[in-house]
Amino acid sequence: MQAKALTLLTACALAAMFPTVSTSAERPTMAGVLEAATEADWRTPDPANLLILQLPGGRVIMELAPDFAPNVIENIRQLTRDNYYASNAIIRSQENYVAQWGDPDAETESPASIGKASATVEAEFYRSAKGLDVVRIDSRDAYADIVGFAGGFPVGMDADGSRVWLTHCYGAVGISRDNAANSGNGTSLYVITGHAPRHLDRNVVVIGRVLRGMELLTTLPRGTGDLGFYETAAEMLPVSWMKFAADLPLDERVNLQVFRTDTDAFKQLVEARRYRTEEWFVDPAGRIGLCNIPIPVREHSLE
Amino acid sequence: MQAKALTLLTACALAAMFPTVSTSAERPTMAGVLEAATEADWRTPDPANLLILQLPGGRVIMELAPDFAPNVIENIRQLTRDNYYASNAIIRSQENYVAQWGDPDAETESPASIGKASATVEAEFYRSAKGLDVVRIDSRDAYADIVGFAGGFPVGMDADGSRVWLTHCYGAVGISRDNAANSGNGTSLYVITGHAPRHLDRNVVVIGRVLRGMELLTTLPRGTGDLGFYETAAEMLPVSWMKFAADLPLDERVNLQVFRTDTDAFKQLVEARRYRTEEWFVDPAGRIGLCNIPIPVREHSLE
Repeated sequence: MQAKALTLLTACALAAMFPTVSTSAERPTMAGVLEAATEADWRTPDPANLLILQLPGGRVIMELAPDFAPNVIENIRQLTRDNYYASNAIIRSQENYVAQWGDPDAETESPASIGKASATVEAEFYRSAKGLDVVRIDSRDAYADIVGFAGGFPVGMDADGSRVWLTHCYGAVGISRDNAANSGNGTSLYVITGHAPRHLDRNVVVIGRVLRGMELLTTLPRGTGDLGFYETAAEMLPVSWMKFAADLPLDERVNLQVFRTDTDAFKQLVEARRYRTEEWFVDPAGRIGLCNIPIPVREHSLE
Repeated sequence: MQAKALTLLTACALAAMFPTVSTSAERPTMAGVLEAATEADWRTPDPANLLILQLPGGRVIMELAPDFAPNVIENIRQLTRDNYYASNAIIRSQENYVAQWGDPDAETESPASIGKASATVEAEFYRSAKGLDVVRIDSRDAYADIVGFAGGFPVGMDADGSRVWLTHCYGAVGISRDNAANSGNGTSLYVITGHAPRHLDRNVVVIGRVLRGMELLTTLPRGTGDLGFYETAAEMLPVSWMKFAADLPLDERVNLQVFRTDTDAFKQLVEARRYRTEEWFVDPAGRIGLCNIPIPVREHSLE
């Protein structure tokens, strides 16, 4: 989030310098774009926004987006510091939909028993576009009039550009809720593990996306109960803990970098995916879907 | 495929009788649509088009679409009768993309060694819309100008309605190929296990979709090689056999029915998914993506 003003300036300057590539000979592949990218095309996520779900088999690493869901994320921060999630488990794995974790006994527990965190949080389903740098993508989207990226996350917008929301692409992280809009408090989280269920956009608070470890969630046996909930405690994979990277000792943190979405290099990546020039393709689409655009993640050494 | 003329007539008559539902009070849920549906809204797939992949843990049941890929499907039929697939294995599981099976040693084998089946088959990436009953869906699609359903499968079409192709929605079944367009012969099949990679449309021959057993493929450990290929034979789940239901004894066949996509009930199902009226939703999308439309499948007793 630092150097935002500079970022904006840079993106605009680059956009002016690099008009849309128009001949296929000039079109790079994604591999070519990444090879040509510089250090400035990558960013190191703020450890305060990196949420780590520790499972027996490994870590699911998520980047959260406080620009979109500040209050829910603060509530989750409080819950992690109270070590709330250590007694949790994966309670649900529904084919082509979601994996979800939380307190397996939550239905019988009073929300008041979650310590210093709030039992209810005003719904953060969308936000004003004001003050947010949204890089728009030319894509005909089934669910939103305008789509693009903000701060590294795929977003949708109203036709008039007034509201912005995080979208339910594969790997999106959200908080489950009951029927009341403010009943999601971060005690139970889900990750999208199937074709983007974009009808959930603006109906649930999306808080970020998975950077690493999707396979730990997608390969879980599917729950046999309604909506993919597990029917017995024995079927549920226990959660070891969930914490923010910033709250861990330096040597236990996360050494990942994410490809920036507000650069000319990213624009080129989108075009490389729109027009696939790899030899295998016989009929490149010339089109791209928002949730089909990869946001590369790489390992890097902590200094 | 029988009674196609009648089906067309019925769909048209019903469409005239049931104009688009316009108030939310009248809008049913999908559960309501299915409850109100009659026997005529379901069809029993032709056993000659039901392909069964037998794995140690269960069956993946696919419905194939000879209206779109007759020659590839005939080649696969020949391969199944030669029991070609019995020595195969799942060779690839790539996160958010595909699971693929075939001969683990295929790279070193001559294509001539596949018995009576053809080593190459002219690519069936799309077909003429002529003579095909396509039910169009009102959806803004990122990859195709027109989308809809034909014979129970999600399809894309050119703006002028000339060509039709099967789309790579979640659960789509295709045949892998090398760079040559006609190099896919059905010896290796894949199933889409992630967000619809629609850029593959018209670049690979899609032959059908999975009706049951997706979880047998989606929960497989991901391959650690390039593109999710398994690196050792020990990692590969063996294929017990793959056969068409029509070639099995009656009591080993498949007792599934599929919701028809050319009926008024299906139109209502699409609308029920477009406008979700279930109490949980606070901001129904009023929009729908092609690959977000479920095609219900149910068990039924064989007569």
